[in-house]
Amino acid sequence: MDLGVELLNITTGGNRVAVIGQKTASLLGVHSSDRIKITYGVKTVVAITNIAEHFAENRIGLFEETETALGISSDERVGVELASLPESLFNIRAKLHGERLREKEIVAIVRDVVDRRLSTVEIAGFLTALSIHGMGMSEFEALSRAMILTGKTLDFGRGPILDKHSVGGIPGDKTSMLVVPIVAAAGFTIPKTSSRAITSPAGTADRVETLCPVSLAIEEIQEVVKKTGGCLVWGGSLELAPADDLFIQVEYPLGIDPMLLPSILSKKKAIGATHVVIDIPTGLGAKIKTRQEAYTLASDFLELGQRLGLNIQCALTFGDQPLGCGIGPALEAQEALSTLMGAGPPDLREKAVSLASMLLDMVGVDNPRNTAENTIDSGKAEKKMREIIEIQGGNPKIKPTDIPIGPHHATVRSKQAGRVLWMSTESIVRIARMAGAPKEKGAGIVFHAKLGDTVRKDGVLFEIYAEKNTKLEAALELAEQLTPIGLSRKPEEKMVIDTIPEKITHEKAFMIDR
Amino acid sequence: MDLGVELLNITTGGNRVAVIGQKTASLLGVHSSDRIKITYGVKTVVAITNIAEHFAENRIGLFEETETALGISSDERVGVELASLPESLFNIRAKLHGERLREKEIVAIVRDVVDRRLSTVEIAGFLTALSIHGMGMSEFEALSRAMILTGKTLDFGRGPILDKHSVGGIPGDKTSMLVVPIVAAAGFTIPKTSSRAITSPAGTADRVETLCPVSLAIEEIQEVVKKTGGCLVWGGSLELAPADDLFIQVEYPLGIDPMLLPSILSKKKAIGATHVVIDIPTGLGAKIKTRQEAYTLASDFLELGQRLGLNIQCALTFGDQPLGCGIGPALEAQEALSTLMGAGPPDLREKAVSLASMLLDMVGVDNPRNTAENTIDSGKAEKKMREIIEIQGGNPKIKPTDIPIGPHHATVRSKQAGRVLWMSTESIVRIARMAGAPKEKGAGIVFHAKLGDTVRKDGVLFEIYAEKNTKLEAALELAEQLTPIGLSRKPEEKMVIDTIPEKITHEKAFMIDR
Repeated sequence: MDLGVELLNITTGGNRVAVIGQKTASLLGVHSSDRIKITYGVKTVVAITNIAEHFAENRIGLFEETETALGISSDERVGVELASLPESLFNIRAKLHGERLREKEIVAIVRDVVDRRLSTVEIAGFLTALSIHGMGMSEFEALSRAMILTGKTLDFGRGPILDKHSVGGIPGDKTSMLVVPIVAAAGFTIPKTSSRAITSPAGTADRVETLCPVSLAIEEIQEVVKKTGGCLVWGGSLELAPADDLFIQVEYPLGIDPMLLPSILSKKKAIGATHVVIDIPTGLGAKIKTRQEAYTLASDFLELGQRLGLNIQCALTFGDQPLGCGIGPALEAQEALSTLMGAGPPDLREKAVSLASMLLDMVGVDNPRNTAENTIDSGKAEKKMREIIEIQGGNPKIKPTDIPIGPHHATVRSKQAGRVLWMSTESIVRIARMAGAPKEKGAGIVFHAKLGDTVRKDGVLFEIYAEKNTKLEAALELAEQLTPIGLSRKPEEKMVIDTIPEKITHEKAFMIDR
Repeated sequence: MDLGVELLNITTGGNRVAVIGQKTASLLGVHSSDRIKITYGVKTVVAITNIAEHFAENRIGLFEETETALGISSDERVGVELASLPESLFNIRAKLHGERLREKEIVAIVRDVVDRRLSTVEIAGFLTALSIHGMGMSEFEALSRAMILTGKTLDFGRGPILDKHSVGGIPGDKTSMLVVPIVAAAGFTIPKTSSRAITSPAGTADRVETLCPVSLAIEEIQEVVKKTGGCLVWGGSLELAPADDLFIQVEYPLGIDPMLLPSILSKKKAIGATHVVIDIPTGLGAKIKTRQEAYTLASDFLELGQRLGLNIQCALTFGDQPLGCGIGPALEAQEALSTLMGAGPPDLREKAVSLASMLLDMVGVDNPRNTAENTIDSGKAEKKMREIIEIQGGNPKIKPTDIPIGPHHATVRSKQAGRVLWMSTESIVRIARMAGAPKEKGAGIVFHAKLGDTVRKDGVLFEIYAEKNTKLEAALELAEQLTPIGLSRKPEEKMVIDTIPEKITHEKAFMIDR
């Protein structure tokens, strides 16, 4: 059928979608969400159909993604017919029924995801099935390879390429901002790409952005790494594993994360890493709650790494509370810089030194821990960080106090005396986000008490910072409702820990932080 | 945030969606697929966000569904803020993790589906999880009640209200077109609503539409039933269980059908049925392949029916081949009318009489089978059918040969002599649809040989009818490639039944036919 083109000038956010009227659809034998084949000259594009009640007959409306794929302008004419279903949809259906997929089938799915030939409904079905049925190691491997195959890759030349990744979950984890300059200062190459926060108060890209630009092109990254040995950039626009970005869009509302392993390792492989330390924060405040889970995940990382030709070591790290004291992009950048300068909270330094020395050990450095500590104590790591900041386009002379913090702030005090027994990551994340993090970089929390600390009545528990006063008030109100810090009480004083149903809705804070 | 409204004048096909630019989204802290709360005067609507790269700042684009919900015109201004997640999404996430849902939680999901507060990604996650984890009977009951609660209901007054439903799967199943006039001619009320074909070559609504209109309003249906005791109408626009229509849109591409039981019985309950016969075609050509599956499904129907206060009987019917000889809306309507007039294929008459007499037996009719057969033999059932056709707006004097059949036709002959051993439903469906069914009502297939029949070399296996010559040729070509009818051979002549991978893609023909 021959239809006149109408450009809608709206993106769908990725999918190729075309709009036709009800009668036209009926003549084509097309139902909503069926695929149509649109032919324009020698170009053919498959789009998903959106049937609109009042759309003009003999016309087809193209969303921007479809327009771009066809390279067409308004009022041109195109041929339209019902398209057959993509092969990969039958592979997805097989997974829905619990079948194990072969590499060829997985590659077909991932390629069709990247080419936007699968709808979000179909991707949601696939990921839900993966989440429930689980995957075998050969499926993990095939998924990783498919994601590498359909994305870009970087090449930093010969020699070991080191990398570090956290599966995420605890707020305030700014370790990468120390590990990169430590490892680079020790003479190794560590091209670190990071994500922005989706559900957390800050991602490493958000933190570093308070010091220097992080959205660099691939050639710029190669330049930075060539000159300094390291970089701290946002990985989101590099298309290292573009399928993963589409998977995340679907996983996020569903609160599932079946692609954790292939997603992480495909990106490490795409950036050319040879030696990788994976940080698995484990504890009540983290994504991974128990050691058992952590060991299983670690052994999966090791096996998948081996299959992909990556040297991997995993670190199970303490995950019962936030890392350091600052939460929120600017507050965390301040803390990371201070720690590189020899001050800063001891847990952050300890963790960064430990992970860096694991990497140094993997590439054969003697006394790796001493080496790592020396880079801090001698000022080499700080100097390296300032080199990276400068070449990425920031001010190399920046002092921690130069990083702007939200002008509105309030102090939350303890209503009783006691010792800090637990900290609720979920509540801390909600309060920091209510204050404006991560979008408002100066917003966040600074803790004055952490696990084991003794607090007197009216002693300061934490401060909240915000860029806007309304957000500060909203965050304070939320802090009143929630219990982000639990103090010791004798059981006979208060036996009921919580009531069900609870008075406030606890949004399950789900962290996608790849 | 205060934004200017731009009406996009496009429907999304159901969901309430609003478009904002990337900077606006960033300021609001909104990610793609997050929800925003749009306030216009006293009205507040929650919409799902579509973030467009080049959309004007300080503007919000509204798709028609959102526009209608707000009752707004262009260039008005609205307040926009990030909305919290709907409670029901947490219920969906619980189901993803295999939890059993309570009635309240299920009602929340179904209500949010109907109110378009859940995105198709979230509905897809929910249905996939249901499909994999399965459901308990109390969940089936809650889902049924929730679907009734959120839809319209009909009331045909006192007395038993009879109904019949097939879970579908075999082509050519035009039984309802006989059961309705038989039961109504016997003096009972049977307000039959049917669906159109989605993946099959004809639904009952498509068949009946070749005789008379089927898209009737609720008041018109009540009029038809009041005057004739029966009706044969399309249920799609009646909003009996609107959630189900949205579920089907998601199930269809994924090829899953977890809502079969609650979907069918909620609609029966909504139409006020008291006695229902469920036809479960069982066999290699049907949706239900084995007797074991059929018995399990039947006992589930009985239990759910009891919980909903419905008298239910199930019939396991022969499902190894198509019913009757004609496939396609017009060819099937011809056959149904002929059979009511005393001619027609014996398997169709036998099945219709059996199911009708089960219904008559349930409401206490003596000699139900004789009664049912008498309505045909005496011409009463035919007369009743013509009454229904007339009052629904068709020609009551129509003869089978008056129903227009596709003018292009071709004959497919056997390349060997033999006895028909099996018929492939999947291939038959594909050929009939390739010929143009169900959209082109005169397209389809007429079989000259069925199971057990002896065919000589060059004997006619079937004819293909089409409204367009190009479609006839495409269907013929497909018939050459596939093997819709299998003839006996001695094993020593041909041991290989099929090869894997197959030469042709077998699309798994999935039937949603509620």
